[in-house]
Amino acid sequence: MRIAVDVMGGDHGSQAIIHGAARAAQEDPGLVLELFGPCQHVRAEISRLPQPLAAAASRLIPRDAADGVPAEATAAWALRHGQYTSMACMLDALGDSRRQLDAAVSAGNTAALVALSRRSLGTLPGVGRPAISTAIPARRRRQCYLLDLGANVDSPARRLADFALMGAAMAQSVDGLERPRVALLNVGAEATKGSAELRDADTILRRYGAVGAFDYRGYAEGGDLYSGSLDVLVCDGLVGNAVLKSSEGLAGMLVERVQEAFEARLSGRLASLLARPVLRRLKRELDPVRYNGASLLGLSRIVVKSHGGAHEEGFYYAIRRAMQEVEHDLPGRLAERWQAMP
Amino acid sequence: MRIAVDVMGGDHGSQAIIHGAARAAQEDPGLVLELFGPCQHVRAEISRLPQPLAAAASRLIPRDAADGVPAEATAAWALRHGQYTSMACMLDALGDSRRQLDAAVSAGNTAALVALSRRSLGTLPGVGRPAISTAIPARRRRQCYLLDLGANVDSPARRLADFALMGAAMAQSVDGLERPRVALLNVGAEATKGSAELRDADTILRRYGAVGAFDYRGYAEGGDLYSGSLDVLVCDGLVGNAVLKSSEGLAGMLVERVQEAFEARLSGRLASLLARPVLRRLKRELDPVRYNGASLLGLSRIVVKSHGGAHEEGFYYAIRRAMQEVEHDLPGRLAERWQAMP
Repeated sequence: MRIAVDVMGGDHGSQAIIHGAARAAQEDPGLVLELFGPCQHVRAEISRLPQPLAAAASRLIPRDAADGVPAEATAAWALRHGQYTSMACMLDALGDSRRQLDAAVSAGNTAALVALSRRSLGTLPGVGRPAISTAIPARRRRQCYLLDLGANVDSPARRLADFALMGAAMAQSVDGLERPRVALLNVGAEATKGSAELRDADTILRRYGAVGAFDYRGYAEGGDLYSGSLDVLVCDGLVGNAVLKSSEGLAGMLVERVQEAFEARLSGRLASLLARPVLRRLKRELDPVRYNGASLLGLSRIVVKSHGGAHEEGFYYAIRRAMQEVEHDLPGRLAERWQAMP
Repeated sequence: MRIAVDVMGGDHGSQAIIHGAARAAQEDPGLVLELFGPCQHVRAEISRLPQPLAAAASRLIPRDAADGVPAEATAAWALRHGQYTSMACMLDALGDSRRQLDAAVSAGNTAALVALSRRSLGTLPGVGRPAISTAIPARRRRQCYLLDLGANVDSPARRLADFALMGAAMAQSVDGLERPRVALLNVGAEATKGSAELRDADTILRRYGAVGAFDYRGYAEGGDLYSGSLDVLVCDGLVGNAVLKSSEGLAGMLVERVQEAFEARLSGRLASLLARPVLRRLKRELDPVRYNGASLLGLSRIVVKSHGGAHEEGFYYAIRRAMQEVEHDLPGRLAERWQAMP
């Protein structure tokens, strides 16, 4: 398996990314990673890899690119001036079939990644625009794919229905769920609620549910995301982005408060013995994007976005996510979905 | 002070509501509460009040009404068939100046409460539609008013700007903040992001900020809600509702997981001694609507929505919230805002 990696663009610099990549390569002897970034710099980082990561150095191949996409750049800037960035070079390589790459992973600017991916890779036949999705941890040890997370704002009914097909294909092929439970995010479960777009999307989704594309559960509310009763929750990118980022903020605040509260009640030593390991695990479980990456769905090829704030471990998991999607030929499964729809 | 209370409509029945009301009356000897609901039933509940709540019984005045608005009723149903419900009778009484009521509190159906409030009370001059808002607990012991929480879906720019004025008036008059920090929820802080509605709203808000209505901070992301750096965060009702309910769901799941994790590590006895009190407080702090109620803003009179799932204590806090808004003449402060805008 060959995966392209954008080493520029994470908040913690290319070292964290290259270490995360090396860890993935070291674990899987069949994995080759092409690292896009300023060549000299990438080579220097590879040569400085500690053991046991250094063992994978021969399967980390530097690919020269000028620089990263600036964090504050717009999609328009990336399309107009970003052709020499590590992100654009990585995506062009993925789009070039002679290069035989299977997927691409970047922790860079999301808007640029969506725009450049669309241009370099194109969307699957029938898919208007890509969406971003990640698996949110839920009750009863389950998870729920939430999408869109911000690739689109003001999504018409048709596009919301596309998101449902994408999410269902993901849950089915990557997680092996036979008939994923899909719902549409609204202000309430009643059929009369919400905007005209949502009601139209509901009509299309009922039709998809009737032909067996997935188990359509109708409208859901924000709280249902964590209930464990859904596998896919569909919404416009503005809503999904707000839900995801507010959840990240709340989880961070909560973990901090639990920690403070225990430290106020327990002696420092006892608190660190009892509370910290629990809190560390919790923090990790509740920060899905930072730890698992988010998938760009609906493109002809596999692209995974690692969280900008991801450390080495987060980037490693984003590569693992890409590998899973390659193994299950996610774009192929998605394309079949569209062909099967009435 | 005289406040009207809808005793029907909470998930925990009228007893919880009447107990919460009695607690508020018992604490404040100047408070009279008119309790709307089936008279015989309300009288029976009042006569069964335990001490010390029973001491306030003479200031709990039953007002006869047929029944509550069903939980699954639509706004249209409430407008057409709800005229004899406790909610409608309560709001009609609040709208009748001869009755000299200062505010109304209900734990009933939100859509019905918004629709009936608009009809019975009307909005303030210049305000198109009411919004729902509550104070969300944030870092650094601060809080942030989030609105709209679901009274409106598909809010045009003009309405989003109204929400900002409402939230700022609330933060200023009730919480005494001189120049509330207001932001608009978007997928990113960059000026080019978001829908046309959001960019138009941003333009209006910049103008409001320039004339000193509030300290306008531009776009914010979902995570900023909990950062402690904002006093008011403005969004469409679909977004706000999704953020609020997903936060409730996440907080519930998190508290449960922390508890499980501690119980797995500690003996049952130690866990209950150490963890449970901390978790109980946390749960309460993080469930603002259940505990504080939500305000309907932009109406000519004060209406507070108590959470449907509120127990006695939650309803008590909703009445306290209404009392605060009466003390600060919130509708008067809101009306001044609109008059002062260019």
